[in-house]
Amino acid sequence: MISIETRWLVQDLLNEYALTIDHDELEAWPDFFTDDGVYKIMPAENRRQGLPGVLVLCIGSNMMRDRIKVLREANEFNIHFDRHILGMPKLEPLGGNLLRVTSCYSLFQTDQEGESRLFNVGQYEDIVDVGGPRPLFKERVVVVDTCAVPNLLATPI
Amino acid sequence: MISIETRWLVQDLLNEYALTIDHDELEAWPDFFTDDGVYKIMPAENRRQGLPGVLVLCIGSNMMRDRIKVLREANEFNIHFDRHILGMPKLEPLGGNLLRVTSCYSLFQTDQEGESRLFNVGQYEDIVDVGGPRPLFKERVVVVDTCAVPNLLATPI
Amino acid sequence: MISIETRWLVQDLLNEYALTIDHDELEAWPDFFTDDGVYKIMPAENRRQGLPGVLVLCIGSNMMRDRIKVLREANEFNIHFDRHILGMPKLEPLGGNLLRVTSCYSLFQTDQEGESRLFNVGQYEDIVDVGGPRPLFKERVVVVDTCAVPNLLATPI
Repeated sequence: MISIETRWLVQDLLNEYALTIDHDELEAWPDFFTDDGVYKIMPAENRRQGLPGVLVLCIGSNMMRDRIKVLREANEFNIHFDRHILGMPKLEPLGGNLLRVTSCYSLFQTDQEGESRLFNVGQYEDIVDVGGPRPLFKERVVVVDTCAVPNLLATPI
Repeated sequence: MISIETRWLVQDLLNEYALTIDHDELEAWPDFFTDDGVYKIMPAENRRQGLPGVLVLCIGSNMMRDRIKVLREANEFNIHFDRHILGMPKLEPLGGNLLRVTSCYSLFQTDQEGESRLFNVGQYEDIVDVGGPRPLFKERVVVVDTCAVPNLLATPI
Repeated sequence: MISIETRWLVQDLLNEYALTIDHDELEAWPDFFTDDGVYKIMPAENRRQGLPGVLVLCIGSNMMRDRIKVLREANEFNIHFDRHILGMPKLEPLGGNLLRVTSCYSLFQTDQEGESRLFNVGQYEDIVDVGGPRPLFKERVVVVDTCAVPNLLATPI
């Protein structure tokens, strides 16, 4: 059984992750992963058909740090602000200190004129390591329903 | 008082219900109800005025199974993927093993081109039986704010 | 540490607040605040730059009661129904009976024709007093990402 304490810790992890992006504190984004953590964005279509193609792949938190650095230096257009609204997570024990965590999100973007629109909806499929001082993502796969991304998919989801 | 354990169980029920629809596992949808469970979709306008008219009515999980069977055989257009984002539930004891549970949802649909849009928002008004091995809906009334449904209202909400 | 009981109480506060507005029970809105409670709506742009400008300011629950009274008498156009979908709250102890609570919302509006659209997204930045018989807002700052509000910003968010 998963303790109530663990449930809250995982819920806080998901929540803090989203707030960190929404607050544009992207440099802190890799810190939510284990050193060897994997981050993927893949279309739901591929997920359903078992196809391996992904839109974004980062292996290890160092690759994530690189990505943010590049993004900070390169992204001179499509300035926007993110807002994640998260659903409640579903937790399943995987043995050891690992949990499988499934949750849904809606992601809205607001442009510099202050207009907001739906940007993306989908599902997080996570493997969370709860063995350390705070839970971390060992794997976070973002399965995007919205495969037709209207803008640059630059910031992490 | 409602125990913390019960709160989590109810939250899981709401969550699993939504994920089951989002994952297009519609055959499992009736299993979230008691055998004599009732499922209704009604417009908020009728709800506010105490009018009885509903958009969808299923009495008993067998009628729900019928509905899914028909839907699987008939629904050759408006292929889409659902995504529910749920708010937190409000729980009130009704005596015996029954709880009144109120929660909000936003429901997005993604078409086969991978474009997502807001499909429906509203409120679940549930009577949940927590007396069995897992909680089940004795009644689930979906009160849709969005009465002007732009497409076929085929899949359950 | 914040107890699990307190977490649920705060979650209920946020939830009840939103349901009260969504159910158009606006006369009960000021009751969610301490007598000297402060309610503000401010643009995220000002929040980010440390500018003091706000869109709405109510100091004390009596000023909120006035506001609702005026709204009930004046608001003859843009009749709509609200629907808040809330994310999970982040809680931080502030000492004494006070907590800092941060949470996200998406707010949809449905018009009298039954058509729904995204109205606003943003973040609640609250100071909650948990010392009394039920938690109350000592301060609720609504930081709206969506600064370009397409209609009258009449009802509280």
